[in-house]
Amino acid sequence: MQEVLSAELARRRDEVTAVDDRLATSIDRLTRFVMQGGKRLRPEFVWCGWTAAGGSPDGPDAGAVLTVGAAVEFIQACALIHDDIIDRSERRRGGLSMHRAVAKDHADAGEAGDSEHFGVSAALLLGDMALAWADDLFTAGAQSLAAVDRALPIWRAMRTEVLAGQLLDLLVTASTDTDAAVQASDAMQVNRFKTAAYTVERPLQLGAVLAGADPEIVTALRRYGADIGIAFQLRDDLLGVFGDPAVTGKPAGDDLLEGKRTLLLALARSELAGGALLSELDAGIGSAEADPGRLSAIIEGTSAVRQTEDRIDALVESGLAAIAAIDTGPRDRLTALAHAATARRS
Amino acid sequence: MQEVLSAELARRRDEVTAVDDRLATSIDRLTRFVMQGGKRLRPEFVWCGWTAAGGSPDGPDAGAVLTVGAAVEFIQACALIHDDIIDRSERRRGGLSMHRAVAKDHADAGEAGDSEHFGVSAALLLGDMALAWADDLFTAGAQSLAAVDRALPIWRAMRTEVLAGQLLDLLVTASTDTDAAVQASDAMQVNRFKTAAYTVERPLQLGAVLAGADPEIVTALRRYGADIGIAFQLRDDLLGVFGDPAVTGKPAGDDLLEGKRTLLLALARSELAGGALLSELDAGIGSAEADPGRLSAIIEGTSAVRQTEDRIDALVESGLAAIAAIDTGPRDRLTALAHAATARRS
Repeated sequence: MQEVLSAELARRRDEVTAVDDRLATSIDRLTRFVMQGGKRLRPEFVWCGWTAAGGSPDGPDAGAVLTVGAAVEFIQACALIHDDIIDRSERRRGGLSMHRAVAKDHADAGEAGDSEHFGVSAALLLGDMALAWADDLFTAGAQSLAAVDRALPIWRAMRTEVLAGQLLDLLVTASTDTDAAVQASDAMQVNRFKTAAYTVERPLQLGAVLAGADPEIVTALRRYGADIGIAFQLRDDLLGVFGDPAVTGKPAGDDLLEGKRTLLLALARSELAGGALLSELDAGIGSAEADPGRLSAIIEGTSAVRQTEDRIDALVESGLAAIAAIDTGPRDRLTALAHAATARRS
Repeated sequence: MQEVLSAELARRRDEVTAVDDRLATSIDRLTRFVMQGGKRLRPEFVWCGWTAAGGSPDGPDAGAVLTVGAAVEFIQACALIHDDIIDRSERRRGGLSMHRAVAKDHADAGEAGDSEHFGVSAALLLGDMALAWADDLFTAGAQSLAAVDRALPIWRAMRTEVLAGQLLDLLVTASTDTDAAVQASDAMQVNRFKTAAYTVERPLQLGAVLAGADPEIVTALRRYGADIGIAFQLRDDLLGVFGDPAVTGKPAGDDLLEGKRTLLLALARSELAGGALLSELDAGIGSAEADPGRLSAIIEGTSAVRQTEDRIDALVESGLAAIAAIDTGPRDRLTALAHAATARRS
């Protein structure tokens, strides 16, 4: 995956610096962001979908499948860069988020204008580039597999779902409805589209369809994907409150200070119904002045953590049951990925 | 064009509300933005390129060419929405810009969180949707003409050029170099990629290539496109300073308050070299407190307006000369468009 991503970014660097040499610094920054980044879960799932449907890892088509995996990774780069602008996140993967890093360099160099706004503007455009280039990678990969017609509807759905999920996340966060049951159901709806579909279900389906999978395989993979994808997000919710900053690369209790509406929070709020602790929690969530240690202690005092862990366990179990009939090789890998995605520490 | 755009937006509304009904309001807002919008110059140029290369306006392929034109219009929707965030523009087409309109509704409804930031966040995501959907329209149109292989490189180049041009615009605006000659050359570089290539040259080329044009036709159209595209931007620069707000839909002197680095400004600065008026102009450009009437009077006192008008005339002349050998029908339309794009009042 690293080679595919770095070759594509090198080609894009040539294309962009042909417009103007001064753009090299910006593209190099995007390149570092993509290359240093993350667990490559989405390309892994594309690959697993493909092998589960009979694709040969050593055959002549393997390269094109990696190209489609890289396309999903470019969508992910856009999603992270734009999400960090929306969430006003300072940090990502142990370093500064893209807009903060650009703003810092602008300020350090004493350039003209407002550094914060310059950072947001440049990050917005670099995210747009990643999104546009993702499509070119998808088309290149799918074309060389003669699979554009069958893969395009899934690619289209994935893109719309992740953007619609992000927009829905915004809307429910802006909602003044404080009912815990509504918040729990909203959180699950956002988890389904913003994370589960886009991280596991659609990448698996995309890979399977590239290999011309039977409908039963696709159905099994999608059921696994929906369950493991949601469990992945529930683990993320726990890490956003209780994660070790040295491992997650984000400040402790980051989600609490950002005011993220998670299922974990909704479960805690439901249990605290009407009490003084609920008022204290509600006053602190989304407030830059709050003490995240105090807020996480309130949540830890409820059964919300246990309930969330139980849901993760149940989702992993049902996800693995869905793929019981798949060939041993891909199933072993999917089993390992299910555990890695839902029992991780970062 | 209106029917193609509105049919596509209706399909997308179904797709997005299938995720969640509450997203309808956001998609309806994007729909109004696209449908109310602008001169449809880019689809016009796609169409002209296609007819200039022998495409039949009444033939079975005409619909697919309109679809590709609509794709360029979706890119334009993204570019305008994201550009207004970057330029912090309050107004667009006589109404509020997208991020301001969303922010206003958020505040009016008394929803939770910072309205300004909510507006920017939602507008960012709606722009992303337009950008992603543009690719789907392009692929659909090009596929039904069996022209993906020859049209895709031009589509790719256009997308990268407009984003690279926007990024370059950011970089040169942040530059502390006050040399008027450098600023003039930077402004022309931005005009070439951010506007000319993407507004005229590439849409024409795209249309021509869809029809399988001869290389001589493509060369002639691209020369016309580069000239008319730059002349279009120079007219825009004049309207940004001297335009009638009732006609442009933007406040008087908007470009001056935004600190836009235009050729017009660089020419005025060059002529004022070192004098007291230059200091007054430089102090006012990009300052929210400046009097735009006073700044435009300083520019009007130089020969910058005359020089810019002369350049527009020369570019229109050379652009029209480039297409002298093209068939009468499309040439008449291209001649009319060249005048409409460079002698407009809005």
